[in-house]
Amino acid sequence: MYRSHDCGSLRASDINKEVTLAGWVQKSRDKGFMVWVDLRDRYGITQLIFDEERTEKALIEKAQKLGREFVIQVKGTVIERESKNKNIPTGEIEILVKELEILSASKTPPFTIEDKTDGGEELRMKYRYLDIRRNPVRENLIFRSKVAMEVRNFLANKEFIEVETPVLIKSTPEGARDFVVPSRMNEGQFYALPQSPQTFKQLLMVGGMDKYFQIVKCFRDEDLRADRQPEFTQIDCEMSFVEQEDVLNIFEEMTRHLLKKVKNVDVAEFPRMTYNEAMEKYGNDKPDIRFGMEFADLNAFAKAGEFKIFNEAELVVGIAVPGGESMTRKEIDKLIDWVRRPQVGATGMVYAKCNLDGTYKSSVDKFYSQEDLANWAKATGAEPGDLICVMSGPANKTRAQLSALRMEMAERLGLRDPNNFAPLWVIDFPLLEWDEDTERYHAMHHPFTSPKPEDIEKLKTDPGNVRANAYDLVMNGNEIGGGSVRIFDKELQALMFDHLGFTPEEARAQFGFLMDAFEYGAPPHAGLAFGFDRLVSILGGQETIRDFIAFPKNNSGRDVMIDAPSAIDNEQLAELNLTVTV
Amino acid sequence: MYRSHDCGSLRASDINKEVTLAGWVQKSRDKGFMVWVDLRDRYGITQLIFDEERTEKALIEKAQKLGREFVIQVKGTVIERESKNKNIPTGEIEILVKELEILSASKTPPFTIEDKTDGGEELRMKYRYLDIRRNPVRENLIFRSKVAMEVRNFLANKEFIEVETPVLIKSTPEGARDFVVPSRMNEGQFYALPQSPQTFKQLLMVGGMDKYFQIVKCFRDEDLRADRQPEFTQIDCEMSFVEQEDVLNIFEEMTRHLLKKVKNVDVAEFPRMTYNEAMEKYGNDKPDIRFGMEFADLNAFAKAGEFKIFNEAELVVGIAVPGGESMTRKEIDKLIDWVRRPQVGATGMVYAKCNLDGTYKSSVDKFYSQEDLANWAKATGAEPGDLICVMSGPANKTRAQLSALRMEMAERLGLRDPNNFAPLWVIDFPLLEWDEDTERYHAMHHPFTSPKPEDIEKLKTDPGNVRANAYDLVMNGNEIGGGSVRIFDKELQALMFDHLGFTPEEARAQFGFLMDAFEYGAPPHAGLAFGFDRLVSILGGQETIRDFIAFPKNNSGRDVMIDAPSAIDNEQLAELNLTVTV
Repeated sequence: MYRSHDCGSLRASDINKEVTLAGWVQKSRDKGFMVWVDLRDRYGITQLIFDEERTEKALIEKAQKLGREFVIQVKGTVIERESKNKNIPTGEIEILVKELEILSASKTPPFTIEDKTDGGEELRMKYRYLDIRRNPVRENLIFRSKVAMEVRNFLANKEFIEVETPVLIKSTPEGARDFVVPSRMNEGQFYALPQSPQTFKQLLMVGGMDKYFQIVKCFRDEDLRADRQPEFTQIDCEMSFVEQEDVLNIFEEMTRHLLKKVKNVDVAEFPRMTYNEAMEKYGNDKPDIRFGMEFADLNAFAKAGEFKIFNEAELVVGIAVPGGESMTRKEIDKLIDWVRRPQVGATGMVYAKCNLDGTYKSSVDKFYSQEDLANWAKATGAEPGDLICVMSGPANKTRAQLSALRMEMAERLGLRDPNNFAPLWVIDFPLLEWDEDTERYHAMHHPFTSPKPEDIEKLKTDPGNVRANAYDLVMNGNEIGGGSVRIFDKELQALMFDHLGFTPEEARAQFGFLMDAFEYGAPPHAGLAFGFDRLVSILGGQETIRDFIAFPKNNSGRDVMIDAPSAIDNEQLAELNLTVTV
Repeated sequence: MYRSHDCGSLRASDINKEVTLAGWVQKSRDKGFMVWVDLRDRYGITQLIFDEERTEKALIEKAQKLGREFVIQVKGTVIERESKNKNIPTGEIEILVKELEILSASKTPPFTIEDKTDGGEELRMKYRYLDIRRNPVRENLIFRSKVAMEVRNFLANKEFIEVETPVLIKSTPEGARDFVVPSRMNEGQFYALPQSPQTFKQLLMVGGMDKYFQIVKCFRDEDLRADRQPEFTQIDCEMSFVEQEDVLNIFEEMTRHLLKKVKNVDVAEFPRMTYNEAMEKYGNDKPDIRFGMEFADLNAFAKAGEFKIFNEAELVVGIAVPGGESMTRKEIDKLIDWVRRPQVGATGMVYAKCNLDGTYKSSVDKFYSQEDLANWAKATGAEPGDLICVMSGPANKTRAQLSALRMEMAERLGLRDPNNFAPLWVIDFPLLEWDEDTERYHAMHHPFTSPKPEDIEKLKTDPGNVRANAYDLVMNGNEIGGGSVRIFDKELQALMFDHLGFTPEEARAQFGFLMDAFEYGAPPHAGLAFGFDRLVSILGGQETIRDFIAFPKNNSGRDVMIDAPSAIDNEQLAELNLTVTV
């Protein structure tokens, strides 16, 4: 038996017990006549003591040689600690050691195994097994496990069935971001890894499964933005005989359940906002509503003056930054530089200070009267002491730029508290979006998303304004889930393919098996998928999903710990009938 | 709202309620003036009634046109049923329909959607979404989901943490059966899909995770035997600071928990049997102990006679088949043909009938006396009325052949009751096995399996007899789990690699990152993995794992429903810098 107790469980009530503990040496203090060792495992830290009055000399000498991260086993007696440590649950006791065995020595770790470490990100990824020993990383992984368990408990109680869908599936001609897998048994042919189990979950609905979910790995071979991973995890769900309202209700309930269970946070009914409203008020389809600074359309007011840039702009739009009046000229200039960074891409920014005496001082005073500026203030809701920031240009671009500014100012003002949770539903997404490259409409969600019945007739006349029965769950400025009511009618599906520019043959090649399935009695169905990595990181109050993944890949899609991907044997390639042409 | 109730929930207490139901038309009976429809969903079947006295003519006509598997929605009143059906929970009521909407029509399905279907396996796989509508398949999937949930609940209660390990990992030179995945971002390089998360779970132990589990997809690109899948699911577990005994105890408890929860079966403490004992008694390292027919070594007795084949054989071994004395000469001849089939591979079989009068009649009467045969009977435990079957030859081959015969006879005698569960642990597996092809020893489990300490010195002198701290959980003749205590000591690991014929460089190339990890304080650890597909199918009382997989692949590794794998675009190949050379 390696241990009678773990390192987090002994208390004052255990004093005088003979115990066996095992774990890692967190640190030791050596005063010559006395040695203390902090012994660590997943469950906590227990202090060990060796002292010359009560411990054999040889044992003290052995203890003196222990290095950080050695794995040891000790036997000893639980005794009361002289200087108690109120910060840890085991702080009232220590172990007077009688036997010490070194189970495994350790080299000096490449970074300190402390809550705040001195290791850089790449180094910590290379030695991820050491990084995982640190409390914050370990706690994140335990947190993730707990969230997954709560999801499963909630959904199982609602009669959802977890069904495993295949990982080795079919590559589709449009699957440009598919990872492919050559098959040895089927020469020259490839499987693909799923970007989502979308078609399979729809087939499960056709199969009468009624309520399906799965916590499942998905894969996308694309250039990785800062916080994406080539393999990621979804909570994938689908329901039959439901309307949008049913889906929103159940997953709102689930999200509220999670917040309560894992954060002990109660959240009111989630607001619902149309896509158009989100774009107009926040310039963003995943608005962070933990704070205000809503957009005000200033077109009418701004064009009252003689400022040519505003007069020629499609959109003039502003926000009121609380307390921004106190910014110096220099600080404002730096802010203008900030909006001009390529990441934001604005050409400039107009501002108006709302002085405490009720007057205004703007960067466009020669074009606008105090009365004009008072109108800006009224529209943006600015109070004396605030700063009105105004941007102008093409509507969509300008909104995106002002959205970036809004988020930045909120960050600077400390309004993005990670322990404040502000979920909402964004609904009524457009069905189609125009693609500049291919000069045609693409499905914004996917081609099986249903249009709103009342908009179907616009498909021919005004396709860009057809709304979909599609919805996103947004929290704290992040999309954490999204889904739609699906098309289950063959004729409507054919119409959609037609509008998406597919020939019947192309539609058949890509989605034939699903279209076939719809010929045999398909129920109305709808679903949703959560980005599990993102959900967990937001619930955990942190920004990067990588901190919640046991073995993440870096921005080049590499696992630097195991050094993957890597070249493979020519023999292996030959067996797969492949040649590498690099 | 598509439904107020599902099709399994209405009872006599609901009579007179106005309800809305939706589902599939299971079948309908049309008497002209009256139409009955069985409406089906996942939850059950509810009878709908249309009759000319109470239903509008147009509605009856609409009902008459419903085909099997149409998806419909009906509104109506719950009424008492005239001829009650005691076989279904909704059998006391029916719905007098007032409104009927056809949500989705159906072509005639390619096979009947009944418990016993007329569809062959390939056809059912092609239309798996229809097969899933059948009760047995749907119930299997729900059963699987329930078993997974119980596994998670059990392990979470024991402080196991579910950690997701990566799917895109590194191919190793020995990973001959790895599926590989070309990387677009890392030109000419490949990921591999994991055959198991073995190294990652060991790294999680080095990382202090202490108790890990995961229900996880694994992949193996190999010729598929009848009941294997290229992607399969494991319950993968690992624990730190434990010995073999701890692992056996906890997973025995888990297995007992599952049997109780999902089958309501109580099972006594699992017997433990060494590998050698299993081979001697059953000729098999996964013995089916639902029945006896244990092997008896007849060497001494058989060589008392003058039968040359026995005298020259390394092993003469027999079993007593209960009641086998009644077999006719013809039946026994057919049995001898059976053991000569290539799948069994025996050259022949000697038998001795134990007559009811206490005498014996054998196929080798000219070589053996009644007294000799009495010794055979005593050794095999044969009683009057039994048949002693004896085989001879090289020890291992002969045991395997007799094992096949034992299983066949048990099958014929109805002794392999799928609702009788007989689990056991097989322990003390050999560490190494001789490979004829490469003419060297290979790790029987994997190179990180620890030898028994007392056997380490035999590594040099008698490697084939070194026992490992390795164990299998066997149930009803199937291995449902297996694992080992791992090596965590660098020196012992180096010794192992040396004995397995690795140069230090080769060992480094394949397992460098794990060996590095062992340099930083590795805890003693041990683990086990269950084959989840197999576990579920055995608990479900069925033979083939395919019946418990939503979308299985066929024997060629193909998904015949989606037609995968398939050829991919040249463009896609070019992006991956690959050429197909078939």
